[in-house]
Amino acid sequence: MVAGAQVAGDAEEVWSQAEIVLKVKEPIESEYPFLREQQILFTYLHLAADPALTEALVESGATGLAYETVVDDAGRLPLLAPMSEIAGRLSAQAAADFLLDPVGGRGLLIGGVAGVAPARVTVLGGGVVGVHAARIACGMGAEVTVLDRSLPRLRELDELFAGRAKVIASSAAQIDEQLQRSDAVIGAVLIPGAAAPHLVTRDELALLPSRAVLIDVAIDQGGCFETSHPTTHADPVFEVDDVLHYCVTNMPGAVPRTATLALTNATLPYVREIANAGLDAAIEVDRGLAGGVNVRDGQVLCEPVLVALSASGAGL
Amino acid sequence: MVAGAQVAGDAEEVWSQAEIVLKVKEPIESEYPFLREQQILFTYLHLAADPALTEALVESGATGLAYETVVDDAGRLPLLAPMSEIAGRLSAQAAADFLLDPVGGRGLLIGGVAGVAPARVTVLGGGVVGVHAARIACGMGAEVTVLDRSLPRLRELDELFAGRAKVIASSAAQIDEQLQRSDAVIGAVLIPGAAAPHLVTRDELALLPSRAVLIDVAIDQGGCFETSHPTTHADPVFEVDDVLHYCVTNMPGAVPRTATLALTNATLPYVREIANAGLDAAIEVDRGLAGGVNVRDGQVLCEPVLVALSASGAGL
Amino acid sequence: MVAGAQVAGDAEEVWSQAEIVLKVKEPIESEYPFLREQQILFTYLHLAADPALTEALVESGATGLAYETVVDDAGRLPLLAPMSEIAGRLSAQAAADFLLDPVGGRGLLIGGVAGVAPARVTVLGGGVVGVHAARIACGMGAEVTVLDRSLPRLRELDELFAGRAKVIASSAAQIDEQLQRSDAVIGAVLIPGAAAPHLVTRDELALLPSRAVLIDVAIDQGGCFETSHPTTHADPVFEVDDVLHYCVTNMPGAVPRTATLALTNATLPYVREIANAGLDAAIEVDRGLAGGVNVRDGQVLCEPVLVALSASGAGL
Amino acid sequence: MVAGAQVAGDAEEVWSQAEIVLKVKEPIESEYPFLREQQILFTYLHLAADPALTEALVESGATGLAYETVVDDAGRLPLLAPMSEIAGRLSAQAAADFLLDPVGGRGLLIGGVAGVAPARVTVLGGGVVGVHAARIACGMGAEVTVLDRSLPRLRELDELFAGRAKVIASSAAQIDEQLQRSDAVIGAVLIPGAAAPHLVTRDELALLPSRAVLIDVAIDQGGCFETSHPTTHADPVFEVDDVLHYCVTNMPGAVPRTATLALTNATLPYVREIANAGLDAAIEVDRGLAGGVNVRDGQVLCEPVLVALSASGAGL
Amino acid sequence: MVAGAQVAGDAEEVWSQAEIVLKVKEPIESEYPFLREQQILFTYLHLAADPALTEALVESGATGLAYETVVDDAGRLPLLAPMSEIAGRLSAQAAADFLLDPVGGRGLLIGGVAGVAPARVTVLGGGVVGVHAARIACGMGAEVTVLDRSLPRLRELDELFAGRAKVIASSAAQIDEQLQRSDAVIGAVLIPGAAAPHLVTRDELALLPSRAVLIDVAIDQGGCFETSHPTTHADPVFEVDDVLHYCVTNMPGAVPRTATLALTNATLPYVREIANAGLDAAIEVDRGLAGGVNVRDGQVLCEPVLVALSASGAGL
Amino acid sequence: MVAGAQVAGDAEEVWSQAEIVLKVKEPIESEYPFLREQQILFTYLHLAADPALTEALVESGATGLAYETVVDDAGRLPLLAPMSEIAGRLSAQAAADFLLDPVGGRGLLIGGVAGVAPARVTVLGGGVVGVHAARIACGMGAEVTVLDRSLPRLRELDELFAGRAKVIASSAAQIDEQLQRSDAVIGAVLIPGAAAPHLVTRDELALLPSRAVLIDVAIDQGGCFETSHPTTHADPVFEVDDVLHYCVTNMPGAVPRTATLALTNATLPYVREIANAGLDAAIEVDRGLAGGVNVRDGQVLCEPVLVALSASGAGL
Repeated sequence: MVAGAQVAGDAEEVWSQAEIVLKVKEPIESEYPFLREQQILFTYLHLAADPALTEALVESGATGLAYETVVDDAGRLPLLAPMSEIAGRLSAQAAADFLLDPVGGRGLLIGGVAGVAPARVTVLGGGVVGVHAARIACGMGAEVTVLDRSLPRLRELDELFAGRAKVIASSAAQIDEQLQRSDAVIGAVLIPGAAAPHLVTRDELALLPSRAVLIDVAIDQGGCFETSHPTTHADPVFEVDDVLHYCVTNMPGAVPRTATLALTNATLPYVREIANAGLDAAIEVDRGLAGGVNVRDGQVLCEPVLVALSASGAGL
Repeated sequence: MVAGAQVAGDAEEVWSQAEIVLKVKEPIESEYPFLREQQILFTYLHLAADPALTEALVESGATGLAYETVVDDAGRLPLLAPMSEIAGRLSAQAAADFLLDPVGGRGLLIGGVAGVAPARVTVLGGGVVGVHAARIACGMGAEVTVLDRSLPRLRELDELFAGRAKVIASSAAQIDEQLQRSDAVIGAVLIPGAAAPHLVTRDELALLPSRAVLIDVAIDQGGCFETSHPTTHADPVFEVDDVLHYCVTNMPGAVPRTATLALTNATLPYVREIANAGLDAAIEVDRGLAGGVNVRDGQVLCEPVLVALSASGAGL
Repeated sequence: MVAGAQVAGDAEEVWSQAEIVLKVKEPIESEYPFLREQQILFTYLHLAADPALTEALVESGATGLAYETVVDDAGRLPLLAPMSEIAGRLSAQAAADFLLDPVGGRGLLIGGVAGVAPARVTVLGGGVVGVHAARIACGMGAEVTVLDRSLPRLRELDELFAGRAKVIASSAAQIDEQLQRSDAVIGAVLIPGAAAPHLVTRDELALLPSRAVLIDVAIDQGGCFETSHPTTHADPVFEVDDVLHYCVTNMPGAVPRTATLALTNATLPYVREIANAGLDAAIEVDRGLAGGVNVRDGQVLCEPVLVALSASGAGL
Repeated sequence: MVAGAQVAGDAEEVWSQAEIVLKVKEPIESEYPFLREQQILFTYLHLAADPALTEALVESGATGLAYETVVDDAGRLPLLAPMSEIAGRLSAQAAADFLLDPVGGRGLLIGGVAGVAPARVTVLGGGVVGVHAARIACGMGAEVTVLDRSLPRLRELDELFAGRAKVIASSAAQIDEQLQRSDAVIGAVLIPGAAAPHLVTRDELALLPSRAVLIDVAIDQGGCFETSHPTTHADPVFEVDDVLHYCVTNMPGAVPRTATLALTNATLPYVREIANAGLDAAIEVDRGLAGGVNVRDGQVLCEPVLVALSASGAGL
Repeated sequence: MVAGAQVAGDAEEVWSQAEIVLKVKEPIESEYPFLREQQILFTYLHLAADPALTEALVESGATGLAYETVVDDAGRLPLLAPMSEIAGRLSAQAAADFLLDPVGGRGLLIGGVAGVAPARVTVLGGGVVGVHAARIACGMGAEVTVLDRSLPRLRELDELFAGRAKVIASSAAQIDEQLQRSDAVIGAVLIPGAAAPHLVTRDELALLPSRAVLIDVAIDQGGCFETSHPTTHADPVFEVDDVLHYCVTNMPGAVPRTATLALTNATLPYVREIANAGLDAAIEVDRGLAGGVNVRDGQVLCEPVLVALSASGAGL
Repeated sequence: MVAGAQVAGDAEEVWSQAEIVLKVKEPIESEYPFLREQQILFTYLHLAADPALTEALVESGATGLAYETVVDDAGRLPLLAPMSEIAGRLSAQAAADFLLDPVGGRGLLIGGVAGVAPARVTVLGGGVVGVHAARIACGMGAEVTVLDRSLPRLRELDELFAGRAKVIASSAAQIDEQLQRSDAVIGAVLIPGAAAPHLVTRDELALLPSRAVLIDVAIDQGGCFETSHPTTHADPVFEVDDVLHYCVTNMPGAVPRTATLALTNATLPYVREIANAGLDAAIEVDRGLAGGVNVRDGQVLCEPVLVALSASGAGL
């Protein structure tokens, strides 16, 4: 039986009956006692940073599948992708918001109005995040430029935007040229499994017009601007050298309804396969699912988690 | 000589030299002494509500032209129109913002994402405000429905949106039907020179889903939702019966750079004509400009201002 | 020499001279005597259901290549695909037609008109059939929703329709939700080589508005609505529980000129290869062509045909 | 009180209570006795062709307003326009339908399919009917050419279709050139208050390819093809010289739900005005409404009706 | 009888039989003897600059109608408009051509290519010429900015281009800002009946990048760049201060087939009216046609022609 | 260190310092002495046709990498592709130019104008060249038909052009049918590493209208029209049988700025890899780069070059 996390009246009962428990976030401490043998917990786990949860999983004898380490045939992370799409779309909205005057922005309407030029938005990176950011920024009427280093990708973007956005090969010189005429810059460069590169240094902030805004969508991987540091939805921006920085971690957290549905669309095929055929058979069919098995029947299988735990001194 | 209000080092000097003074807002009290004979002040004045300024104008012997009472050949208010375009575009952005969870919204991404339905935005009124609201909402990916009562206007909108937005004749029954499936409602019905009609009553709020958002663009004219009351950019929303209300007055104040340029584009032809030919000749050419002359050489010419003043007991 | 089936004055002569005979449909009985050794017949054969033709082919010593069993590198059926595209496009036209009152429909213009909402069309399945159905339905002005289970496919559709059609992940619950607000439903779910799943049960018909119409494009594979049964172009619809069912088999038969050209575009590369290099060499180059060889020099090679024949008692 | 014709349980009661009766069609004989003094009947009347109804109206002392003779400021017929939009859209759908083989057409899919050319549709007349016909034909994928004689209108169409449809100045020679390469021709030339001109003569039918289809949207005004004669939804086409003719009168009758809403959107402003202010005041405000008053308090006011009646010998 | 100028075998015979002679250009000297009483010549005449032709017309007793002085209800010149549309479209093509290296341009592909920014094209003036120039420049992939001074026009353009081209209010400062980032500038400002204003002075050429190109569509009215002087299709460009100038007069002369058809579409309604009803009656119906009558039955009626002639000393 | 070919003051110094020399064209004779051991020259080389350069490379001990023989994973030529994109876009511009009358064309504006049909442009081949040609031709307003033989490609084009261009399967008969109604034909069929096929024979020229224009983008591979022979930007067209032929070799040479950037975008990833890791390691990572090594440390490795050289009698 598959029971969702859309908690029924009694959480304990759900946990006790469910063979597979699907969640959006890791279990909270009060849920640890519900974990049990033969049970599969499928959610974002981030165990390497959470020895307490790891210990709880190990002791319970449960199996922990982590969304963030499942891979697809092409080595991509299919259960992170929906979050990238959402973050990309939200980043254009955030750019529009922090161009407004009351929050300290340049006082510009992102799309301008008949007779008044629109704001200029530069999107660094034309991958999943970047293309969604650019689509929404175009939809809001901005003048949009997308930079990317991959020529095949630039060709796809050129066909997609058909002249509506400029699509230019990225380089350090090109970035500097764009900064000089950008009201907003969206940093959308993510290298899976690595820290994001710093595309804009502190020195380069001086190229931007006063009170321009940087949106750092790569902040969960360290940020792609040198001057970024994580912020929250409650307090999203700070200022460095007269430039606003929007560096909210977990941007999709602002749209839980949309994000939950998007995530479920991505996880459901895996869940269906596991529920129908069992975990072993499901892994047989889709080897990338194996990457998700962080803990199997109480045993830690994931190397980075083991490393992190031994470093933390946890006696597992 | 025409000197703008984009204040040089010394405001006093600018006022003393300028034959025509252009501003975005009415003069503040410290500027009253700068007013003088032979000078034309061209700005938003709203004298009926401001006896002190009226008195200052009268005593100075200056001429006061008010943006808000200039009319065009068709009887429309050409110096208010740019603000309507801006407010319309901003209203869609506001709708997107107050669908977010951290500010109390429904937790929806306005445009959804592949596989997840977009938010449903209903725009009440397909005039200048409404068409701009709908264009931006479409650009952000929302499911958009525009209601209007004028069949000729519905035809224009049908051609403009070409199926991207639904365009439906408005009626009380139709509004109720739409409310039941709207995540955001933009009230864009403005009747020039009259209080806006109440399109949604308090009782009808119950038709909306929980934590839906109403954006009242007509708030400067009293609001088009029964439960609206004015708010500010600093504290933009309040909640009634589990429905968010965004009722910020002077929405374009959030984008002063864009708004100033847009306004100047509209006022410049008048200014050029007055500067080149003098006020009398300019009025000869464009009779609608006469409507703007609230005070001429220290004499109040505008009937509603006279009425307001005598009511306020000012001895003019 | 390649001779088409676009019969010259004397069919017998064409058959006697042609080394390869291309047809759109299987040979009719009067053509059986024309089959002969060394001749390749390339057409839709459907031998498993036609023992008489199988026997004629075997006895003649000819080779029978069946369009319907040729596969491409990806395991798809490239000689069926053009028919899917055509059926998809026709299905939207059929939906528009059976919304009309004189044939018993709901009396709706599919695209509505300025001020009147368009009809709501739900397309179940976003594959080849579904995307063509949705494109035409959008082109006619309908409000279109496409459901599909594959997230990568949903992303392609989201980019293709760019907000013009809603693109939502399919599930049983989602289908029920859509049925309640659909004037027409196009069933476009085909699983190659398998019976189509029943996406709408008889009970669920009650969710639809009165006199809504279902278009079952999967009818050649058993239909994707529980209440479907095959109909013809002459008598295309029947009614169950106040819901119209359009279940015409071989929909492309309504557009023979278009279908023949489309089919020829797909078959020509194979024909050219066979004519130039011979059948053996052609199969060497393209292994998927081997799947099309149902009968080789009078010998049945296709397992399902053998099974069907032994079941039918034919003594081959 | 305004009571619609959406008949309640008891028609008689509705008629007896309603001060204004709105209908879509003229009253049927059984309703004549319900007519009474002080009552306004607002519907399509066509009295010149219906002496019995005229007599009933006169005797009852009621007032009869006819949709078909109300004019707007520009002398157009605003209560006929919605029907033209609907007929235009339906005409493209009819063209697609009668290109199909089972009903005797050329066997073409109107939009073709990848690799196969689309059908060629020529629209004669780029007014309300023509532009809607062309939009839907384009949406279905056809190759579309629109002919019109007005250069200002051609410019509007050129901007609207932006290269998707060809927009060419009409002339007898141009029509002949187009006929030679048209699979379907939509006759959309209507001259208000006059018989439609014959744009295609019987001789010219020979220019068309075999089994092409003509759609005569002007049939209610005599038809714009020489060989047209009225047909019905039940039996919509006939053939002359190997060319199909679709000449259904009252095309919008096929979509009663859509047509009723569209008509109501057009009539409602008049009804509201009459109900609020009375007929005299309403005419004062909108002189074009006077044209609709065919019978006032039992007296025939409409010249053509008088002429027709005296010709028919009715003693009014 | 109407006989076109599309000369039959024998010009003399055509002239002798035709009651109305339509031409594209003024008659050449060898045609003067063919002019005769009772004949109407309808063409571009430009008599003020051509005393010989004026004399010939006067002596012949013929009537001369000049395309260039016919006006429409709005005071515009309907027989010049088609030439403006053509010149506008050609101007974008010329801009693309003179960005090429072999003819001395900047060596840029106007639309760039995936990864390489497009050329930047600025269009001065958003009237008929400018909108057509901008549409084609967008179609070729350029980054396009349109400047215009009329706010209502800017709104139309904003809706038409929907973000694809930037639409900005024109001013001297704005022009200078655009020049600094323009690879090509199209001068499309025409003030009917007046010399074009000089929008770019010689000094301002220094703002442009090296080897940029100016296209002066206003050259027939003196040019809108200070450094313009007329050129021909045979030798179209010259260089001033390292900036190419394209100043071809009569640009539509490059596309005689297109231009003749476009002109005929505009003149035909007048010709039809004159041929059917006679010149007097035609003028009665359309007063603007009177403006075209430069010579009536041998008598000069057009004031500027009279003035020009007396100045030239011709004894008429 | 990587030094570009964008020559600094002293070419000799650049060559002496650079470990890798990037160029757009092969070195000229005066540069031969600069070649030296340990140096990598990366440019278009075309050694088989240039024994002198080959000898210089061999004697210098340098390594010569040729752009034109690098292949990608799919066997395509990634360093030629950007030139195809540029040539494709330029070809549509050339078609527009040689429809003009002053250069001997048909006197047509490629996009026509409101009321006048556009020119008809046929694009033979829907690959990289063809799709870019068609996009620009559509953007200029032409009536565009694209022919291609690959059904999967036709489907992509059908989706891309969405009815704006016709997309038809190519065949000899289809080409002849299109020629009869083409004002311009763009030959865009290139078979990598092979002479282009002759799609239009001399006899078929008679099918074209008088003064139509052929643009042969395949001329660098021998041309795809029988009557083509190479021309130059200085003298681009010649005429055969009343048909203009545009057969300029190295079309991208007209846009050196755009072409250099486009080329650099394609070469940079290779250069970066070689500079960072050395040539051997770079080849290890990307086997297709090995195909580019024509000369390694003074030794010829490329078979065709060896063959050509021995044929030319050079004693290497």
